Amino acid sequence: MSLTVAEISVRYGCTVQGDPDAVVERVATLEGAGPGCLSFLANPKYRRHLAGTRASAVLMAPADAENCKVTALLHDNPYAIYARVAAELCPPPVAAPGVHQTASVHPEAQVAGSAHVGPGAVVEQGARLGESVVIGPGAVIGEGAVVGAGTRILANVTVCHGVTIGERCLVHPGTVIGADGFGIAREPEGWIKVPQLGSVTIGDDVEIGACTSIDRGAIDDTVIEDGVKLDNQIQVAHNVRIGAHTVIAACTGISGSTRIGRRCMIAGAVGFVGHLEIADDVVVTGQTMVNRSIAEAGVFSSALPMDEARRWRRNSARFRQLDDMAKRLRKLEKKLGRGDD
Amino acid sequence: MSLTVAEISVRYGCTVQGDPDAVVERVATLEGAGPGCLSFLANPKYRRHLAGTRASAVLMAPADAENCKVTALLHDNPYAIYARVAAELCPPPVAAPGVHQTASVHPEAQVAGSAHVGPGAVVEQGARLGESVVIGPGAVIGEGAVVGAGTRILANVTVCHGVTIGERCLVHPGTVIGADGFGIAREPEGWIKVPQLGSVTIGDDVEIGACTSIDRGAIDDTVIEDGVKLDNQIQVAHNVRIGAHTVIAACTGISGSTRIGRRCMIAGAVGFVGHLEIADDVVVTGQTMVNRSIAEAGVFSSALPMDEARRWRRNSARFRQLDDMAKRLRKLEKKLGRGDD
Amino acid sequence: MSLTVAEISVRYGCTVQGDPDAVVERVATLEGAGPGCLSFLANPKYRRHLAGTRASAVLMAPADAENCKVTALLHDNPYAIYARVAAELCPPPVAAPGVHQTASVHPEAQVAGSAHVGPGAVVEQGARLGESVVIGPGAVIGEGAVVGAGTRILANVTVCHGVTIGERCLVHPGTVIGADGFGIAREPEGWIKVPQLGSVTIGDDVEIGACTSIDRGAIDDTVIEDGVKLDNQIQVAHNVRIGAHTVIAACTGISGSTRIGRRCMIAGAVGFVGHLEIADDVVVTGQTMVNRSIAEAGVFSSALPMDEARRWRRNSARFRQLDDMAKRLRKLEKKLGRGDD
Repeated sequence: MSLTVAEISVRYGCTVQGDPDAVVERVATLEGAGPGCLSFLANPKYRRHLAGTRASAVLMAPADAENCKVTALLHDNPYAIYARVAAELCPPPVAAPGVHQTASVHPEAQVAGSAHVGPGAVVEQGARLGESVVIGPGAVIGEGAVVGAGTRILANVTVCHGVTIGERCLVHPGTVIGADGFGIAREPEGWIKVPQLGSVTIGDDVEIGACTSIDRGAIDDTVIEDGVKLDNQIQVAHNVRIGAHTVIAACTGISGSTRIGRRCMIAGAVGFVGHLEIADDVVVTGQTMVNRSIAEAGVFSSALPMDEARRWRRNSARFRQLDDMAKRLRKLEKKLGRGDD
Repeated sequence: MSLTVAEISVRYGCTVQGDPDAVVERVATLEGAGPGCLSFLANPKYRRHLAGTRASAVLMAPADAENCKVTALLHDNPYAIYARVAAELCPPPVAAPGVHQTASVHPEAQVAGSAHVGPGAVVEQGARLGESVVIGPGAVIGEGAVVGAGTRILANVTVCHGVTIGERCLVHPGTVIGADGFGIAREPEGWIKVPQLGSVTIGDDVEIGACTSIDRGAIDDTVIEDGVKLDNQIQVAHNVRIGAHTVIAACTGISGSTRIGRRCMIAGAVGFVGHLEIADDVVVTGQTMVNRSIAEAGVFSSALPMDEARRWRRNSARFRQLDDMAKRLRKLEKKLGRGDD
Repeated sequence: MSLTVAEISVRYGCTVQGDPDAVVERVATLEGAGPGCLSFLANPKYRRHLAGTRASAVLMAPADAENCKVTALLHDNPYAIYARVAAELCPPPVAAPGVHQTASVHPEAQVAGSAHVGPGAVVEQGARLGESVVIGPGAVIGEGAVVGAGTRILANVTVCHGVTIGERCLVHPGTVIGADGFGIAREPEGWIKVPQLGSVTIGDDVEIGACTSIDRGAIDDTVIEDGVKLDNQIQVAHNVRIGAHTVIAACTGISGSTRIGRRCMIAGAVGFVGHLEIADDVVVTGQTMVNRSIAEAGVFSSALPMDEARRWRRNSARFRQLDDMAKRLRKLEKKLGRGDD
């Protein structure tokens, strides 16, 4: 597969600076590129590699064009254009239709003729797989679960009974969708299980990373709306709702019944307590503890920045005296008058 | 399956306000309920939905009864009663006894006649499965592992060699029990592995969430006592002991050889350093770093609450000056006398 | 298998205090040991158990010898010697060569004659397994992946297409190596996927814990160098590089393109933001947010220590006033002169 710079510029609305007949057939970083490579500049951190690149063409914002010595494709969103061209140059492999002989498909499951069920995969009673669905090796699709057309469930994923997944989704290995929510009730002699009778509903165009868990609802469903992108090692508790086009980075945990708005950007290792309402377009930085609802768009944080351990120990020891310090400061001010008196 | 309000009240010791002949056949939230539904009010956050509910009956504490316009079942612990009634109305499916033809059971494994071994599951040499055990699709039960009667090990779980699991436990998909603990010893040229020769012992009535890992001990066993409830994405390191009826929310990690007492309640994303002793009945709030032993019951915390990022940046920058501020405050006090002089 | 104290002392350069003919045949903790047991003392926390031990021999540093009433083997690094002797006394089981009849090995995969492929495992087209490789039950080795001699991939692990793993590595159950990195580009109507075209390259003698995920690179590879030891539940994002002999404890997450040096020691639940450079020999304590590059060796921290919740609440509320307090302190100093005036 190859494309000319002219073809890319026409298809994606880029301006060309340099040779429109240059041909690209693969992608590379600015540093690693050679002839035949398309590269891109999106993160300003890598701007220093532009001058020396040997790429045949580089996608970039117009403002960077003057520092480019090779052919440039200019666009306001070079990263998105890169994504589209890379997908053309390196399309994902197409899985052959059919059920592998070592897979186990229940006779009462429905599998579209164009679907692929890999070795060792299990499709249980009443499950339905749409056209072009891919079920990876060792993946398990539980009773009555529904997987929409074009969705790929990769190796060793577990989709529990009754879960509904939309179209064109991608679920990475080791992930679990629809395990019981953590519902327990205290009794004098211990805890008893609260039956988890809801399910999980996932919209279209959702991507879910590896080793992530999304629990089924206690009564109503846990809901992941269209276009949500979840990274690896994420925990989504029962009855959470994640609004359309929200993205969440790895290791974040969301406690039960919290609702996150649309188009939010949640960084890694964030923890949400339960029963919160988070507005649309909220941004949360890494390792934040989201301990209250957020009524409108904004950026939110709570983690302390790193310090050299010796200094950190001195300061963190003082943290225990902070309330005391505040009171003593107030007393001094009373005695002396505030500085602005 | 259906129950009358009178039947529930007799069986569970509730007081009826309203129609004892009302029939419930499924459960629903206060908001989602219609005729034939049993609902409950336990979390005060949802009290505002009581007045408008269309449930046929609602479980609640006596104090809420006056705001209930439909039939009420009054009990001091409505959530626990809800759990029991819901389990009656919606019993979990019973797995048919037998070994699926695509499962692989070693000829020297012992599988009780009433046990179920699902498609693609693997039961290795010397493993023993008790009566009514369920081994889900793709799950692996290692050499010599023992699974007690009535325990359900769900899809794609790995139980490593020699692990012992008690009766009536439930282990959710993707979880790993008995992988090697993280034992390494430093040598001049790198690290060498310390053999992990202990195992994992799990008591009765333990529930373990999805994508959780419980490592085997280095010499003695890692121990999870009766009635412990673990959520998803939890890490339990080698030689940890978790006391009976302790509950731990998702994303928490417990370092090696730490012992947690009985009936503790540990929130999500908590981190325990190693070799600690935590007393019975301790409560730890979300994202806390438990960096020392806890000698008696109490509530413990360490994470900062969230703030708007601009304000948070100003304050967190000052954190680096905290020790300096404390000293300067002291100097002012010396000069001026403390406010209470 | 058994060894005399004299044999151990000669083989590993220990000094004997006591009976060189004492025989050990298994290992135990100081507390749990009886006749025939070898024990060790490495962590000073356990020194109090030395006097009462019934072990036949104990490995320890020379400084501890005077408190030992049983036979002692003295060495400056008793833990490493313990690791080596324990591996001799309790060698890991050797898996029989051959492919289990329920495994699925593609006809165009290459499997060395001495390799073991367990029940339900899947080896896809073009994958290559070296001599003495072990593929555990339910594990999946993707298209074109390469597993070096002596490496063991345990149950339900997923190694995605094209990943390269060196020799003598050990990968614990449930782990995923080579899932797509979290690469998305914003467009007006949502996010589009950035193809993840790199792979993962893992060196020799690497150990990777359970339920850990290591993503494939966006263009170039994610790289784990020789001798790295990763614990459970770790997230390694695309294009991360981890230097040789670095060790990382459980629940830590490393964001994309961050490079960690050699021989670093990273504690549990640490979060690295992306695109950082971390020097060799850096130590990071638990739950730290590593939010900037580290240019030279040192110890780094950021998490607050735990406190009793009532006191913690008062202090953490003041954190929101910290910048204000600093300014007020400055004003008082201006009014009064600093204490040292």
